[in-house]
Amino acid sequence: SGLVLVKNPHLDSMEEDILYHLDLGTKTHNLPAMFGDIKFVCVGGSPTRMRAFAQLLRRELGLAGAGEDVVDICAGSDRYAMYRAGPVLSVSHGMGIPSISIMLHELIKLLHHAKCRDVTIIRIGTSGGLGIEPGSVVITDTAVDSSFQPRFEQVVLGDVVVRSTELDKGLAEELLACSRDIADFPTLIGHTMCTYDFYEGQGRLDGALCSFSSEKKLEYLRRAYDAGVRNIEMESTAFAALCGLCGLKGESCRCHLR
Amino acid sequence: SGLVLVKNPHLDSMEEDILYHLDLGTKTHNLPAMFGDIKFVCVGGSPTRMRAFAQLLRRELGLAGAGEDVVDICAGSDRYAMYRAGPVLSVSHGMGIPSISIMLHELIKLLHHAKCRDVTIIRIGTSGGLGIEPGSVVITDTAVDSSFQPRFEQVVLGDVVVRSTELDKGLAEELLACSRDIADFPTLIGHTMCTYDFYEGQGRLDGALCSFSSEKKLEYLRRAYDAGVRNIEMESTAFAALCGLCGLKGESCRCHLR
Repeated sequence: SGLVLVKNPHLDSMEEDILYHLDLGTKTHNLPAMFGDIKFVCVGGSPTRMRAFAQLLRRELGLAGAGEDVVDICAGSDRYAMYRAGPVLSVSHGMGIPSISIMLHELIKLLHHAKCRDVTIIRIGTSGGLGIEPGSVVITDTAVDSSFQPRFEQVVLGDVVVRSTELDKGLAEELLACSRDIADFPTLIGHTMCTYDFYEGQGRLDGALCSFSSEKKLEYLRRAYDAGVRNIEMESTAFAALCGLCGLKGESCRCHLR
Repeated sequence: SGLVLVKNPHLDSMEEDILYHLDLGTKTHNLPAMFGDIKFVCVGGSPTRMRAFAQLLRRELGLAGAGEDVVDICAGSDRYAMYRAGPVLSVSHGMGIPSISIMLHELIKLLHHAKCRDVTIIRIGTSGGLGIEPGSVVITDTAVDSSFQPRFEQVVLGDVVVRSTELDKGLAEELLACSRDIADFPTLIGHTMCTYDFYEGQGRLDGALCSFSSEKKLEYLRRAYDAGVRNIEMESTAFAALCGLCGLKGESCRCHLR
């Protein structure tokens, strides 16, 4: 049917569903009227960038309101920001798996309540590249954890549940094809490694704590490269797992800045 | 000496230290002049609340600029917000362990570069309470993980390192004594459970995914209560581990709202 799935039998018996961190709800907002025609959701860490992205889309798509200010749909909450450009939602998710997970749980329920169909979700933003040219965009085929395994370990009531982190291969190929239409736009498909920490977890030498040598760091990153990893960030495994379980066609494409 | 410790031999040989997510740096800012007299840092998830907290402190302490707007010291970054009220910094950390970890690494380096001494750091905010009256404040003695163990598992170059999550017992008692001076201010000392997820991880029945019954949820929360847990949130184990390792006297006190 193309509908967004929720996998929670308790939701049906709830009189009201409050999407607390988005400052939206089924009783306070007419979600089908507000969001029923959404076909794409782009998510990224920074609220400022997601606002700029919505403004860019309005100009590029020649939409009404292009050039004007965009309204933050979640203005009543300072946890996330959400902007609209025609059929596209642009939503911020903060940094790290716990932060993007809260947003995705509530976004998926939002799309479900709004009866959206055939929604594609794309994560955009920056990441650290591995052995690739600065400015390259990595489109993720599979998100892997810090042991280079294609899995997301979710703790449910104290027990670990392992989930798949494959993303939509067809969508990855489509995005790669788009990049070929643009000159000087280096783009590749590869694995993306997702860590819980930016400093010690990604082998940075400039955190408040660092117990390893530059050689050990390079040896770890070389092993990651050999396992197929082309970029490193902090949300992709949870993103892939949640999108996969809820029937959202998902992709992650991130630019390696330096 | 009371100085804030960094445990990273690489830092000494760096010509410049850029605190990227705070939009501060050792070459662009005179950190000792800006922050050398800081004695307290209060951190919490929401930027709006940390701004309001700085304004409240300025009024309560009768500081210059009370009643006026406060300036976000990290205005050039939308990752975190930082405000000052006399000797107190009020800093936001977003949601979840990865988000607070990035902020703490850079905050600890900031306090180190600024040569601050005898700094106390207190995490404030809200949390879910367990078997306690709504409105109660829980002061954490020990942060525990989702298996009720007093540990923080940090992945360093793919390997798990286990760290202690005890907080400063003397500071906890001092804070408890303060609460006794205020009428109708229910406050207790207890364990705080820290999870990586808000919905499935904390036994909520209203996420996009939920595979457990209300009975299983209650059984898990009962086990947590029996292990000494009095509230649940998403940052305390990483906070306790980092503060402990870097010589910061740290405490977490969070209000159970509902």
